[in-house]
Amino acid sequence: PEFTAEQIGPALVPIGQFRDTFIIAVDNDGIVIIDQHVAHERVLFEQVMERLTSGPLESQRLLSPVMFELPAAQRDALEAHSKDLERLGFDVGNFGGDSVRVGAVPAVLVLGECEGAVRALAEDLEGLDHGASVDESLRRIAAMTACHAAVKANDRLTLEKMAHILTELQRTAYSTVCPHGRPVLLRLTRRELEKSFQRS
Amino acid sequence: PEFTAEQIGPALVPIGQFRDTFIIAVDNDGIVIIDQHVAHERVLFEQVMERLTSGPLESQRLLSPVMFELPAAQRDALEAHSKDLERLGFDVGNFGGDSVRVGAVPAVLVLGECEGAVRALAEDLEGLDHGASVDESLRRIAAMTACHAAVKANDRLTLEKMAHILTELQRTAYSTVCPHGRPVLLRLTRRELEKSFQRS
Repeated sequence: PEFTAEQIGPALVPIGQFRDTFIIAVDNDGIVIIDQHVAHERVLFEQVMERLTSGPLESQRLLSPVMFELPAAQRDALEAHSKDLERLGFDVGNFGGDSVRVGAVPAVLVLGECEGAVRALAEDLEGLDHGASVDESLRRIAAMTACHAAVKANDRLTLEKMAHILTELQRTAYSTVCPHGRPVLLRLTRRELEKSFQRS
Repeated sequence: PEFTAEQIGPALVPIGQFRDTFIIAVDNDGIVIIDQHVAHERVLFEQVMERLTSGPLESQRLLSPVMFELPAAQRDALEAHSKDLERLGFDVGNFGGDSVRVGAVPAVLVLGECEGAVRALAEDLEGLDHGASVDESLRRIAAMTACHAAVKANDRLTLEKMAHILTELQRTAYSTVCPHGRPVLLRLTRRELEKSFQRS
């Protein structure tokens, strides 16, 4: 079930989590269960895509650049997409031999995710059709970046952090970028609940 | 859907309410939505029935007895069941003319509910088959008393009060008194949720 702007009204209030993986929220019209990782990933993806229209993404330079080895095909793929990676805030270059050197990453990324994000990116870009358009390539990189920057399943969140994700998700629901992939939320409507409990 | 002891495990933690009418709780195995009035009513009914086996119920005497008028048939019904009413903690008598006088009510009753409870009782007892057994009559009175003593829909509850109701409901689930009537709870299992969100 895909979500709509109506399902994420401004009055949606988070009350807690289930298994530190799903946010439970309520408003006047029902109970909403949200997959926190998928929701946050969607929010970050939309933000990244939106910001890209007005220029390069905010970048964070690493105090100690990260170095690690990658297969030649993946190093080549990173180099072939270096312009896209730069627009997204990555500074990735060859470091001689089999190594790459990551000097900067998008500001949205958690620093501990740097190496994992670049490895996943390289693997993804290697598999990408060489004839793929720049837009498609940017989307893929943005999606990977959002996935690595988003809160994970099993992350305990504060009510403030949940509220922040819901607020951003509401903005996202109005955006025109086509959503895709796994369901973000499940709504139990007031009507369904009252019927189940024979209150209607 | 009727609830079982397994559905109300000791690890069930309330996290909030929906429309001040349903308690939302979680444990490791799912999300549980509880009709707070029906749950509390069930708990109080079981307690009343259980305590009745060991003697009369605890009573609270009113500082100012409550007086109000009732139709003759209802006054007669109250009088005919005065022994049962007494065992439950009621002190109800005729006050001359069309009036009854309530001097004491069961301790579980909220004081503001006295008149409403006795009125509803009188109406119910009037409709009760005169050949009904004492047990049936006691059950009916206990059920009415529990209904009036229970938290209502639209009552805002503290997390402590919710936890108390859930703990008592757990005890109730193990009791042998046959449950009846409206559903108490709805469980969304972890498996269902993970399937809905394509996480399984």
